[in-house]
Amino acid sequence: MKSTMQTTPLLISSLLRFGTTAHAESEVITWTDDGARRTTYGEVGTRAAQLAHALRGLGITGDQRVGTFMWNNAEHLTAYLAVPSMGAVLHALNIRLFPEQMVYVGRHGGSQVVIVDNTLAEPFSRLLAALPDVRHVIVNGPVPQEVRDALGEPAHVEEVHDWDELLDAQPTTFDWPQDIDENDASSMCYTSGTTGNPKGVAYSHRSNYLHSVGVAATLGFTQADTMLIVVPLFHANAWGYPYSAMVTGASLVMPDRFLQPAPLAQMIESEKITGGAGVPTIWNGLLQELDAGSYDVSSCRMLMVGGSAAPESLIRAFHDRYDIDIIQGWGMTETSPVGSLALPPARIEPGTDDYWRLKASQGRLLCGVEGRLIGPDGSEQPWDGQAVGELEVRGPWITASYYSNGTESDAEIADMAGKFDDGWLRTGDVGALTADAFLFLTDRAKDVIKSGGEWISSVDLENHIMSHPDVLEASVVGVPDEKWEERPLATVVLKEGASATPADLRKHLEGKVARWQLPERWALIDEVPKTSVGKFDKKVLRKRYADGELEVQETR
Amino acid sequence: MKSTMQTTPLLISSLLRFGTTAHAESEVITWTDDGARRTTYGEVGTRAAQLAHALRGLGITGDQRVGTFMWNNAEHLTAYLAVPSMGAVLHALNIRLFPEQMVYVGRHGGSQVVIVDNTLAEPFSRLLAALPDVRHVIVNGPVPQEVRDALGEPAHVEEVHDWDELLDAQPTTFDWPQDIDENDASSMCYTSGTTGNPKGVAYSHRSNYLHSVGVAATLGFTQADTMLIVVPLFHANAWGYPYSAMVTGASLVMPDRFLQPAPLAQMIESEKITGGAGVPTIWNGLLQELDAGSYDVSSCRMLMVGGSAAPESLIRAFHDRYDIDIIQGWGMTETSPVGSLALPPARIEPGTDDYWRLKASQGRLLCGVEGRLIGPDGSEQPWDGQAVGELEVRGPWITASYYSNGTESDAEIADMAGKFDDGWLRTGDVGALTADAFLFLTDRAKDVIKSGGEWISSVDLENHIMSHPDVLEASVVGVPDEKWEERPLATVVLKEGASATPADLRKHLEGKVARWQLPERWALIDEVPKTSVGKFDKKVLRKRYADGELEVQETR
Repeated sequence: MKSTMQTTPLLISSLLRFGTTAHAESEVITWTDDGARRTTYGEVGTRAAQLAHALRGLGITGDQRVGTFMWNNAEHLTAYLAVPSMGAVLHALNIRLFPEQMVYVGRHGGSQVVIVDNTLAEPFSRLLAALPDVRHVIVNGPVPQEVRDALGEPAHVEEVHDWDELLDAQPTTFDWPQDIDENDASSMCYTSGTTGNPKGVAYSHRSNYLHSVGVAATLGFTQADTMLIVVPLFHANAWGYPYSAMVTGASLVMPDRFLQPAPLAQMIESEKITGGAGVPTIWNGLLQELDAGSYDVSSCRMLMVGGSAAPESLIRAFHDRYDIDIIQGWGMTETSPVGSLALPPARIEPGTDDYWRLKASQGRLLCGVEGRLIGPDGSEQPWDGQAVGELEVRGPWITASYYSNGTESDAEIADMAGKFDDGWLRTGDVGALTADAFLFLTDRAKDVIKSGGEWISSVDLENHIMSHPDVLEASVVGVPDEKWEERPLATVVLKEGASATPADLRKHLEGKVARWQLPERWALIDEVPKTSVGKFDKKVLRKRYADGELEVQETR
Repeated sequence: MKSTMQTTPLLISSLLRFGTTAHAESEVITWTDDGARRTTYGEVGTRAAQLAHALRGLGITGDQRVGTFMWNNAEHLTAYLAVPSMGAVLHALNIRLFPEQMVYVGRHGGSQVVIVDNTLAEPFSRLLAALPDVRHVIVNGPVPQEVRDALGEPAHVEEVHDWDELLDAQPTTFDWPQDIDENDASSMCYTSGTTGNPKGVAYSHRSNYLHSVGVAATLGFTQADTMLIVVPLFHANAWGYPYSAMVTGASLVMPDRFLQPAPLAQMIESEKITGGAGVPTIWNGLLQELDAGSYDVSSCRMLMVGGSAAPESLIRAFHDRYDIDIIQGWGMTETSPVGSLALPPARIEPGTDDYWRLKASQGRLLCGVEGRLIGPDGSEQPWDGQAVGELEVRGPWITASYYSNGTESDAEIADMAGKFDDGWLRTGDVGALTADAFLFLTDRAKDVIKSGGEWISSVDLENHIMSHPDVLEASVVGVPDEKWEERPLATVVLKEGASATPADLRKHLEGKVARWQLPERWALIDEVPKTSVGKFDKKVLRKRYADGELEVQETR
């Protein structure tokens, strides 16, 4: 039986229209060398209309890509709203990638117009020759003539524009098209995969709409909030903040390039920030700044954290010292990105062990995000908080595939397809789910050791080994084993002058993990190799083992 | 450009699955003669699975209608979740309609199975002979044998079942179908039109999903809340509470048939209610009970009110005496029903005149609900808080048409089509919108007086006339006028012994309304005729005027 209801498409323009009308007086505050630069949602709405007119004038008449190479500021927010609303596709380029990755991503997305912050114009000019689709560059803010010249240098660049000059000349309202299919792409984001080329996700109007309303309903922030958006707008869909802010009307503070602890603390104090969003490193730096300085951050009630797991100690420190609630979330570019949020149930007494355990978890899967755990034998695991499997998710803001522009190799296409399992996204994360949908991750799937049809957590072993007083660092990787398929190899860095042997360390593990999980292979090394972001580089360790470069001692 | 995102349908079963898993321990408390009867979301989930199995067994294999004739209780909530989730269509019958309307609605919807509360079984048995589609009746709770016999009497009733007996025998999980189109009907509700037959709206899974998440995101209630749901589940889609509760995990208190002020006050005190939902009459009765008694209602922070306009005095009284925030909403069966909610912006100082004015407004249109005002000349009016027009709305939870089962007359079909204007729903409400989307309603469109291409508000005139000390009641209606199309006729009831003349009253109006709005036609009457719900019955007044039954005095 058909319903009688309207099937109005869920479009970014609905969020834009609502936010810039109903919440016209909410503020967007961009940090500068001279402190706060202020504008309102209403003015952002006007600017968005002008940007849309300007882009139409530059030939963006359909679903062409428009790129940004920008910090978090009012103009980047304007692009986030205007570009999808006019029917084009926003591609926020990650300014932190290695140049070769940046070029890959830029070419693959194929933006025809790119908006660049003046403070990033010079580095962007050095990439531009390798981005043949770019016909127009719009620079936000003044730049020296030589930078402007450099931007105009490549033959494929037709013109370099000044943001204010270009927009000031345009009409202040725009007739946002209503005939967009809600499943059409609104924006793109690339994973920053550690191996191979980054992979692209093309979000839809529908997925962004549902994600932003869903997150807003769960987090409960309102027009009375002022949110400090430290998570870059070029990273993982900006955690959906540009859109959920339109729904809630919360004022936004955009730090631009002032991401150091001191200016962030100043923003919280002077703008009376009530909440924020950023990675653990940012909040860790802030904590040290607050401890060392004398800031009044009493306005702040919550900081959302994601990107990597925040240690319980960080969460407790903010609570104990500043009465700030750190809310951990989990997600990935492929999940828009928010998949779960750690809000303990009201029945759990704050401050109890249970409470802190849930606060430090990856959180509860949001309404709309379905999850399942696939165990070592390929079967679905129960949600009992114990059984471990790779998390697979599905739902209206989860990606179904990666974006292909036809240039990928067969290997890349196979790799991309391999991330999906019968309509579910393989997250590559391994852990357990409680009966009430709280997620506790333990490992990356590629780091789990598959031994005799069971899994051994490398992270668990590492933590137990590192609890030995002689150990400075330890990294455990799976290595091939004829009988068991894989067995753990423990690589250990001892503290200076320490003398523990592999046998001692194995003894130390007994009773802490199941007997069959105890490593037989040990290597004492000088230093654990690290990735550019400081994580253990297990790829390198596995290769050194395979190449026979490690001095392995066997102990049983 | 197609997105890469999943297009997972938005289904009621997603809300059911999430709520009964993630919030399995949240409570559903049903009031009884013996106080609270308690169950949990988890147990409701189990019962929903059992109900679905039972209904399959009774032949509900597709999109057949399943009716309810019930108070607000755990079993009615179970039906709200199970019936749409299994792919059938829920039709909650309004137990308060006149019998002939009830029969019309029951036949028009065509439910094959009806679930009936034991306390309503006897009145339902008297309707049943006139509802030939009903094959099975399920009775919730024990009934005397003679009532059970009466239910089984009509030849078309195959069997009468006992809820517990029927459900206890069923499996406790159900494989909710995923292949339902999100635009298919999930449930039906009929308007209680004052003229003609009620008109049916068929909500979709999508509209209910978006409405419930949208309302939850705006109101910001959470799992820590306990909500008292006084608005009947058979009225206007229960304001979406059965579904938004699943999203937020708020515990629910269901008053069943105990809707009197004293038990409601007891529920608030003993269950530590934090919020509620009901019509102004209910909260007005509660206020008097609280004033007279000695209840502790300090747990309660908000009460949502809708259905008709709550006077500012009621809103202020709850605030001043009990620190309870009355949140006014506007909507209709055709809008799922929540179209707006009166949450003043944070910049408006609580307690100021501006604040109370916004609190007493119909509220701000929700994100997703687009509105426009169509003025007397058919043109769109500005959102300036002054210009008045009929409100038209559209959006993903607004109806596009009424449900037709092919039995309507041509006149009914024309009447139904006339409620829509180029994709917008004509609300029949007249008022103004502020620039930031706050709605101030003044009249019903049918009561506005169309005079010389302009509108005169009947409600405005009535309020000003009633402010005269001699006047007990006044009702103003439009009557035909050769020159102006319509002119106002003021019908006035004087207080006992009062002696004001129409000329006095007209003088009293001068300066309060524009000169051209002053009525020339006056009639002193003994009593204003009222509808069954106590509103002025203007239809009757217009007819009396047309029939020459009123003694009209002209004064200019």
